[in-house]
Amino acid sequence: MVTPALQWMGDSHGYLELIDQRCLPGALITLEVRDTVTLYEAIQTLAVRGAPAIGVAAAYGLVLAVQNASGDTASQAMVDLRAQADYLAKSRPTAVNLCWALDRVTRAAEAFVPGYASADREALLACVFQEARAICQEDVAMCLRIGQHGQHFIKDGFGVLTHCNAGALATAGQGTALSLMFEAQKKGRDFTVYADETRPLLQGARLTAWELQNAGIPVRLICDNMAGWLMKQGVIHMVVTGADRIAANGDSANKIGTYSLSLLARAHGIPFYIAAPSSTFDLSLASGDAIPIEERGAHEVTQIRDTVIAPKDIGTRNPAFDVAPAENITAIVTEKGVIERPDREKIAAHFKED
Amino acid sequence: MVTPALQWMGDSHGYLELIDQRCLPGALITLEVRDTVTLYEAIQTLAVRGAPAIGVAAAYGLVLAVQNASGDTASQAMVDLRAQADYLAKSRPTAVNLCWALDRVTRAAEAFVPGYASADREALLACVFQEARAICQEDVAMCLRIGQHGQHFIKDGFGVLTHCNAGALATAGQGTALSLMFEAQKKGRDFTVYADETRPLLQGARLTAWELQNAGIPVRLICDNMAGWLMKQGVIHMVVTGADRIAANGDSANKIGTYSLSLLARAHGIPFYIAAPSSTFDLSLASGDAIPIEERGAHEVTQIRDTVIAPKDIGTRNPAFDVAPAENITAIVTEKGVIERPDREKIAAHFKED
Repeated sequence: MVTPALQWMGDSHGYLELIDQRCLPGALITLEVRDTVTLYEAIQTLAVRGAPAIGVAAAYGLVLAVQNASGDTASQAMVDLRAQADYLAKSRPTAVNLCWALDRVTRAAEAFVPGYASADREALLACVFQEARAICQEDVAMCLRIGQHGQHFIKDGFGVLTHCNAGALATAGQGTALSLMFEAQKKGRDFTVYADETRPLLQGARLTAWELQNAGIPVRLICDNMAGWLMKQGVIHMVVTGADRIAANGDSANKIGTYSLSLLARAHGIPFYIAAPSSTFDLSLASGDAIPIEERGAHEVTQIRDTVIAPKDIGTRNPAFDVAPAENITAIVTEKGVIERPDREKIAAHFKED
Repeated sequence: MVTPALQWMGDSHGYLELIDQRCLPGALITLEVRDTVTLYEAIQTLAVRGAPAIGVAAAYGLVLAVQNASGDTASQAMVDLRAQADYLAKSRPTAVNLCWALDRVTRAAEAFVPGYASADREALLACVFQEARAICQEDVAMCLRIGQHGQHFIKDGFGVLTHCNAGALATAGQGTALSLMFEAQKKGRDFTVYADETRPLLQGARLTAWELQNAGIPVRLICDNMAGWLMKQGVIHMVVTGADRIAANGDSANKIGTYSLSLLARAHGIPFYIAAPSSTFDLSLASGDAIPIEERGAHEVTQIRDTVIAPKDIGTRNPAFDVAPAENITAIVTEKGVIERPDREKIAAHFKED
């Protein structure tokens, strides 16, 4: 059973409900989000995380921005909408879906306003709500199609390694990388997932293990540094992860550790797949070198939840993401289909097919 | 300042004092060990860990075995000594130094007993104590020589990656891998150590970071899955780790994660060194394939100290060690010198020089 990471409650005057993923797997707690400051904090502290889920949450965030805007006219509310879009864009620097969703809602609002210069805020709210809801519904459909396109890679008897959480908790639907697993399960295939715990924030241990266990898919939790050895032992037959941003040449930014996994998989002759919506592509970036990598605070490394694991005042490094180079990627699965051995030309062709 | 992991207190009737490494870095607590059952538990639960330290502790364990033996004659005490040697040998299956030290003390005792069939237990105790103390003193000298032989690999401006803890806390002296750092520091060289936290038991975060911070060597703590990306970024210039067992061809068993690091280092053209005493070699094993790999309990993966990080009843894998293949190893540093690009012939020659 898939539990949605986020849901809009009610009509355009409603609010956003999020699973507080910081509390999983110990407790299933939901947050009611009624303003952009609360949403910014929820995104920044990873109460909601996963590129597609952040995009949907941000889109709904602009509904909240219009709800709370000063002034009664659509034109006045647009000022607040734009300011809040700029504000929310800063909550996670690496996730391109965030900016994509904010831009899309802003453009829809901008397209609406000139024709209705005298319209009231309520009309703008309806327009923004409609666009945010469309993004959410498209996300649900996108997840399903990614799973359908990629499920055949998971064969009977496979050990499937995944990193971080690219599941239902990372989207408005049934996830990206995990969607392949949910669809392979529907086909009756027998496979075991090896879930990297994914330090520092343990999304694999806390979220992926929880989701797969709930879904009845056999799962073995491992520490990140065990993956290479299990590849060597022959128990891993493929790797599939999500992505936070994909450059025009196929270089894919994802949770820290993904770069190493892609290299280890290649060295062992194991296929390495990325499963991500086409909104994850940033075709303005020639390669992964141009993707900004967020460096997060030391406390994530020096403590685990409230348990301090390191000496006081120790120096750290904490890059939150890294980049799997295209040459290590066997295929990228999007909602449009599969890009085998991705490169600039194949990716351009994938998008031209629209 | 180097804090010894273990010390024998008093004469042959004394006891073994261990730093309880399970409590670091939060608290510096020492354990008084006066019997082999307490020692077995200390080794098994990693209160004392690190192959050389375990060897020295086990040697002193046989002093405790003779202290507590039934019967007043040396011959009677030998029965208990042999039984306790067999018992202690089972406390950690991978560490060859454990068996090596137990065998050496047992052989010294066996060499003593036939000539003194009527000797009392006290005479055997003196003999066993002398041998155990010799092992301890040789370990201190061995650590120093490893550092002296290998320090030149650490150059000014280097970033040096290490995994787990191969420091003073792993030996009776100043460590193996960390001994290179302590000696490079004495030469006034300026370098930064990147310490892998080393899940599941976090010896890097808890012990290596603590030791290096105490010694005034700049250290940055990282999660295990960050190492590959930092290699790619050019901030890591060499890797040095200890080893738990080395086969005749140079394949080196060490803490889980070492295999992946050796492969990642090779892929980035970064030298990868093993620093270990010659007692770590098990020349009876043709290759790493013959090294037994201890698989430890699920709780180490599913919780960190008392903090549960995973859903209840989740499946896990927990191999405690893996094997870095000789072809990924730039050099092995022992107390006898440096074996560059180790293979069967060079290792055989290294031992023939005795």
